[in-house]
Amino acid sequence: MNSLSPETITLHAPGTVANVVCGFDVLGFALSQPYDTMTMRLTTPRGVTIRNHDDYNLPTEPTRNVAGAALLALLKAVPEQVGFAVEITKGIKPGSGIGSSAASAAGAVVGANYLLGNRFTAAELVEFATYGEEVASGVRHADNIAPAIYGGITLIRSTTPLDIIPVPAPPLFVTVVHPQIEIRTADARAILKKQVPLQDAIRQWGNVGGLIAGLMKGDYDLIGRSLEDVIIEPVRSILIPCFAAVKAQSTAAGALGGGISGSGPSIFMLSKDEKTARRVEAAMREIYIAAGIDFHTYVSPINPTGVRILPAEAAATIRTSC
Amino acid sequence: MNSLSPETITLHAPGTVANVVCGFDVLGFALSQPYDTMTMRLTTPRGVTIRNHDDYNLPTEPTRNVAGAALLALLKAVPEQVGFAVEITKGIKPGSGIGSSAASAAGAVVGANYLLGNRFTAAELVEFATYGEEVASGVRHADNIAPAIYGGITLIRSTTPLDIIPVPAPPLFVTVVHPQIEIRTADARAILKKQVPLQDAIRQWGNVGGLIAGLMKGDYDLIGRSLEDVIIEPVRSILIPCFAAVKAQSTAAGALGGGISGSGPSIFMLSKDEKTARRVEAAMREIYIAAGIDFHTYVSPINPTGVRILPAEAAATIRTSC
Repeated sequence: MNSLSPETITLHAPGTVANVVCGFDVLGFALSQPYDTMTMRLTTPRGVTIRNHDDYNLPTEPTRNVAGAALLALLKAVPEQVGFAVEITKGIKPGSGIGSSAASAAGAVVGANYLLGNRFTAAELVEFATYGEEVASGVRHADNIAPAIYGGITLIRSTTPLDIIPVPAPPLFVTVVHPQIEIRTADARAILKKQVPLQDAIRQWGNVGGLIAGLMKGDYDLIGRSLEDVIIEPVRSILIPCFAAVKAQSTAAGALGGGISGSGPSIFMLSKDEKTARRVEAAMREIYIAAGIDFHTYVSPINPTGVRILPAEAAATIRTSC
Repeated sequence: MNSLSPETITLHAPGTVANVVCGFDVLGFALSQPYDTMTMRLTTPRGVTIRNHDDYNLPTEPTRNVAGAALLALLKAVPEQVGFAVEITKGIKPGSGIGSSAASAAGAVVGANYLLGNRFTAAELVEFATYGEEVASGVRHADNIAPAIYGGITLIRSTTPLDIIPVPAPPLFVTVVHPQIEIRTADARAILKKQVPLQDAIRQWGNVGGLIAGLMKGDYDLIGRSLEDVIIEPVRSILIPCFAAVKAQSTAAGALGGGISGSGPSIFMLSKDEKTARRVEAAMREIYIAAGIDFHTYVSPINPTGVRILPAEAAATIRTSC
């Protein structure tokens, strides 16, 4: 049996971008900014307690909280009579389209695994965390969870059975803009067509192949050419104000390409270097300021590690300062 | 201006497998067996003459012959008043589904380029050769032409504009069985649905991503898992006798996976090594012998070089012996 840790740990659980352009439902990557901060410790007896430090009125009842539901799923595989006390400070706004629920669920299971002596595989942790996604959206999708746990870029080759493929990539910087509007997930889903033209599907899987090859070859030009979505974006982008302008101006500023993050409203763009990513940010800001729409922007490299448990000293500083 | 060669050259133009399982219309690879043998020399004046050495009654009029049409397209980009005399010995049976027309068209343009002092890029040669495919099937598709010219495995990321991506791969051996039945291309096309369920398309592009990642990582297990086609194979395989048995028995014999070659009737299977590929061949033979259907089989590694111009000495031996 692995050893149980008496520590209180602090971790950062990153935002993630899913539905990476042509890779709808299969490709995602982790961000370095923004992230949730969570503290966790083992408890006896069994069970989960959640405390939220934010203004989002998220539920604290474990079965209705994404971190709670993920931990309850994990506890079914734990023979010891233990539980978890979790405190969550959301840095990722719910409903932004950059994996807010996935971050809390992923952070919870990675933290739990650490406290339990690292007994589960990353793939098992993804499975547990998808129960958190089910609470948030009704679907146990893994395309945000996987990069939040694995870090980097991940391909969900298959959901049944779950098959997660880490995709090597050259340095990439991400600019995210979150226009402060609400898109109901139900609307984003309902708008999608259930049938698509075979010719469009072929173009899409040609691009998926090109994107994976471009990432693995470190071929930025190929990555850029492959960042094309002929199926989802033409339909969903109409829900996002200024989408076409953001895309055009970002590309003009040097971005390789990008699209809707998750089901929106956030938009992300990929660039070769931080300088370009900052230029892209400036272009995005200009558009939404002119449109009079509130927004947030984030610039960060792709996060290579996913959820990160902080060294004890750094964690103590954070806890003291709160 | 590049130098014109007075030589008579001999070349081998390989068969190819297109529609590689999940990679319908985008993924293809070159075989080492079978191949067409062609001899070519420059002529004056301008124009193309074709001689066929086979029993297939293929047209010799250049505009109606795949090699001829490809060469006429290439000659439009040649300022000199030259032409080509071509003799073709088909080693690849027309209608087999392993790129018979592509081989002649690809061989013709690669040979012509050699005789013209190698003035065109591989991508330009693919463009010319697709005019040969247009003669054969009415469509300028490049998914057999590209691997015949580039060798190895190629991804056609996009046809408009044409974007050919060579895909690195670990050693792979191919077993092809060609049951001697005729599938009319028109039937193979008509049977396809013009609309496909979005959920199936997503599964397909997950597999395309997995296959490219598996090839580039040299991960045989991932390659095998990704060799799944939920869109075309369920529809087209009904035209091919014993398809399900061939697939099941080949996998049982150790194949990673496989499917319909081109639009059939040939079936191909990929294996890690030649020994397994031979076992797969034995399994295929048993099935078609029991079914009383005539067939040919071919076992070869993936051909890394595509069309190959023979050294002058080897070529002389072949010409003498004919």
